[in-house]
Amino acid sequence: MPRLGLPQGRAWAALLGQLLRPPRLVCVGAVHSHSQLCRLVGHRASIVTGLANLERRRCRGSANIQLKPHQEKSNFILKTPKGTRDFSPQQMVVREKILDIIVSCFKLHGAKGLDTPAFELKEMLTEKYGEDSGLIYDLKDQGGELLSLRYDLTVPFARYMAMNKLKKMKRYHVGKVWRRESPTIVQGRYREFCQCDFDIAGDFDPMIPDAECLKIICEILTGLQLGDFLIKVNDRRILDGMFAICGVPESKFRAICSSIDKLDKISWKDVRHEMVAEKGLAPEVADRIGDYVQCHGGLSLVEQMFQDPRLSQSKQALEGLGDLKLLFEYLTLFGIAEKICFDLSLARGLDYYTGVVYEAVLLQTPAPAEEEPLNVGSVAAGGRYDGLVGMFNPKGHKVPCVGLSIGVERIFSIVEQRMKTFGEKIRTTETQVFVATPQKNFLQERLKLIAELWDAGIKAELLYKNNPKLLTQLHYCEDMGIPLVVIIGEQELKEGVIKLRSVASREEVAIKRENIVAEIQKRLFES
Amino acid sequence: MPRLGLPQGRAWAALLGQLLRPPRLVCVGAVHSHSQLCRLVGHRASIVTGLANLERRRCRGSANIQLKPHQEKSNFILKTPKGTRDFSPQQMVVREKILDIIVSCFKLHGAKGLDTPAFELKEMLTEKYGEDSGLIYDLKDQGGELLSLRYDLTVPFARYMAMNKLKKMKRYHVGKVWRRESPTIVQGRYREFCQCDFDIAGDFDPMIPDAECLKIICEILTGLQLGDFLIKVNDRRILDGMFAICGVPESKFRAICSSIDKLDKISWKDVRHEMVAEKGLAPEVADRIGDYVQCHGGLSLVEQMFQDPRLSQSKQALEGLGDLKLLFEYLTLFGIAEKICFDLSLARGLDYYTGVVYEAVLLQTPAPAEEEPLNVGSVAAGGRYDGLVGMFNPKGHKVPCVGLSIGVERIFSIVEQRMKTFGEKIRTTETQVFVATPQKNFLQERLKLIAELWDAGIKAELLYKNNPKLLTQLHYCEDMGIPLVVIIGEQELKEGVIKLRSVASREEVAIKRENIVAEIQKRLFES
Repeated sequence: MPRLGLPQGRAWAALLGQLLRPPRLVCVGAVHSHSQLCRLVGHRASIVTGLANLERRRCRGSANIQLKPHQEKSNFILKTPKGTRDFSPQQMVVREKILDIIVSCFKLHGAKGLDTPAFELKEMLTEKYGEDSGLIYDLKDQGGELLSLRYDLTVPFARYMAMNKLKKMKRYHVGKVWRRESPTIVQGRYREFCQCDFDIAGDFDPMIPDAECLKIICEILTGLQLGDFLIKVNDRRILDGMFAICGVPESKFRAICSSIDKLDKISWKDVRHEMVAEKGLAPEVADRIGDYVQCHGGLSLVEQMFQDPRLSQSKQALEGLGDLKLLFEYLTLFGIAEKICFDLSLARGLDYYTGVVYEAVLLQTPAPAEEEPLNVGSVAAGGRYDGLVGMFNPKGHKVPCVGLSIGVERIFSIVEQRMKTFGEKIRTTETQVFVATPQKNFLQERLKLIAELWDAGIKAELLYKNNPKLLTQLHYCEDMGIPLVVIIGEQELKEGVIKLRSVASREEVAIKRENIVAEIQKRLFES
Repeated sequence: MPRLGLPQGRAWAALLGQLLRPPRLVCVGAVHSHSQLCRLVGHRASIVTGLANLERRRCRGSANIQLKPHQEKSNFILKTPKGTRDFSPQQMVVREKILDIIVSCFKLHGAKGLDTPAFELKEMLTEKYGEDSGLIYDLKDQGGELLSLRYDLTVPFARYMAMNKLKKMKRYHVGKVWRRESPTIVQGRYREFCQCDFDIAGDFDPMIPDAECLKIICEILTGLQLGDFLIKVNDRRILDGMFAICGVPESKFRAICSSIDKLDKISWKDVRHEMVAEKGLAPEVADRIGDYVQCHGGLSLVEQMFQDPRLSQSKQALEGLGDLKLLFEYLTLFGIAEKICFDLSLARGLDYYTGVVYEAVLLQTPAPAEEEPLNVGSVAAGGRYDGLVGMFNPKGHKVPCVGLSIGVERIFSIVEQRMKTFGEKIRTTETQVFVATPQKNFLQERLKLIAELWDAGIKAELLYKNNPKLLTQLHYCEDMGIPLVVIIGEQELKEGVIKLRSVASREEVAIKRENIVAEIQKRLFES
């Protein structure tokens, strides 16, 4: 599935401050340092170190190879590679909640899991991505095969289907992909990012799987409570038919399609300029396209386009329109037709799409009365690609496919920001009980007690100190949100009890040593 | 954490057929094709295709660039890169169960999650892995930073600690790492594999976190029901002390350490030969080492080594022995001392270890009466690395660390094989209900009904056909292990009911249309 497009420039700018703060602010830890460091780095020489440094200097014939280790070290700039980031424990919690909702929905629809390697033979990725192929990360030739990092999860899925001679499969795949894009990090684009894909491969009756894909997008966006959203749909055959009747030479279809795809990032004026000045389209052809790509609506627009005197001349366009009509029928049965908008400007950048394409955008709620709801960015997208598996088959045998990809990075930014706005404190551990002591020389008793808790499956921690202060131990529980403390000291040991303390209420009760596990389990079950 | 070592050659050979069948057989799908294809490929020219092919021919100045697409395609060899594999849905189910047990245990011990990018600046990985550095995958220089795929999860963790100026953290990390090793796939080694790491960073009182790491390994191996196991422990300071008193020059400590580490893969004779012939050690020095590395035992061996006239001359060795004694005390409190074996031959290959090191091996059960239990391979390992974070700090500030890594690939092979042996059928989906019809023209009703189920959170599927045969639909349920079927046809529509069928018992009851969701939920809750 493709990288999700960026929203309308104007809309983006208007909402950026409100909703989607730049990740540099959102993700205070790693990314903040990252952007700081990007500025610091400046010239590459400053990030080399140790032997690597020495070796390179030697290669360059420099005489200055007598640097002291300490000087070397101070040149060392600590950062993650450009366009990548670490996920802190707080971020991991949010991320896992989001992924859990997404994967649960994929399973709700009967999808199987699949995983493929992070890299593929370079040849597998050739001629799949059109203009974007230059963004593929290649591995260094260290002898052996030529390899590239995967650019999406769709091409590896098609390769898997063809390699195992499978005729049908409904699978999901959650994994990282890599693209060498200019990391305009303020807009939430990374060079390493996670995709959550669901695809249905197989030769089925028209638009049934396609409708299910749109249903899944609706369910996930609803489940994530991201506010109101809209799914734009179009069909590559309608686009191609439109290009043909507008007078675009067939050799330029894909290139013009790529330009049209930028309409959610740049204005029609700029897209028109690109098509005319860079891609050599006649200005009047561009203007004819302009008339169409400004149309959007529901089923009625589909009906209207059927009647369009020019578009109805194209057999391809009619096929696409017919399928869209059927799609709307199924979407109505699924109760989601009002979430779907037929939009002739929707192109999707990737070469491999052959039929219906779609893209979900979040809407600002509530929208100002006089305006249309604003587009705050694409969070899911996909479409039909009936030819991709066949590209991997020696005889070109096709396996029709349709699928979707959820843009978790953007969703992650939104949810994280919302949690900050509402001041939700995120627990980064699941620890239920802390094992404490008020006295010195109680390490042995603490270790015996905590082993008992672990063996009973109770999530427990202690401080790794021989003689920690009680206050330090209780503060740790409050900081980490641990609900219960068990306390063992001289008095307790003598009486054969353990003190059980609730961190919230500060109430303490003495429990018989042999009953402590059962009592904790009871409390945890009740809470 | 390091790659886990291979078991004793003899033991491995003896058990290979019984327990750990070569993954080529274990993982029938992808890997089978993979090894077949490796043989097919032979010379690289045959795996190029399409434009890439044409371009390369052009570069070579070949005149023959007029190949037909079809001829090109037939040269296309479909495979995953050498040493990598896909995970099929069946394999994903097993894998997720294993990871779930491991991660639950990490959380039991209060660990936070963390994620880092798949690649790091090349400089970050320099001088961390000793002799293994040549196995690092580099990315191609496509302009910008020089990058390498991560080789383990430990160095990125240390980089994260230093970059964020953290003084302590208990984190787990599950992720893929990459090593360009000769993929002797029959022994379960891959170039891409998953690691599950748990580490405790911070300046704490001696051996408390170290003991917890060993406790975690015990809990995980017990939880996975892999049979009997043993954890070998040693200390780098004991090894270094031993090297010193045996007469190894200090400059050769790490190199000799690497040789010793191979004792679980090759015989003492071969290790001795490597040390003498390749690493220039005096034969009598090698023999002195040989006396020590054959010792293994429990706490009593620690006591014995304290009394060893030569070893007790080494301050370093005494420190290591003192810590091991304390470790055994804590392990006794944890109730796991009998699982731990002090083994002077345990070295661990990586440069960054500074103190205690350990490695868990599975034992054959039951062992033949006259023999010791046989070693079937290392499934977990780790140790203390107090200097690694400091290597990333400009002022060399240290953060002591200790951690462990679970070898999921080998565990995966074992569990998968066991499931096959016991003929366990693995469900690859979680679908609870199938929506079927016995009549034609019921697609609309099926779509309405399934949307209702999905919206109620019931996992449901239907066939993507306008008019599927009832038998085909019921067969699908049996194949996929779906327990319930809802059937809607003319009769049901007229009577306002849905037929609910149990796939196992083939019993059918008619349920009022408006009660069907509640009835299904009741049945699923009861089962």
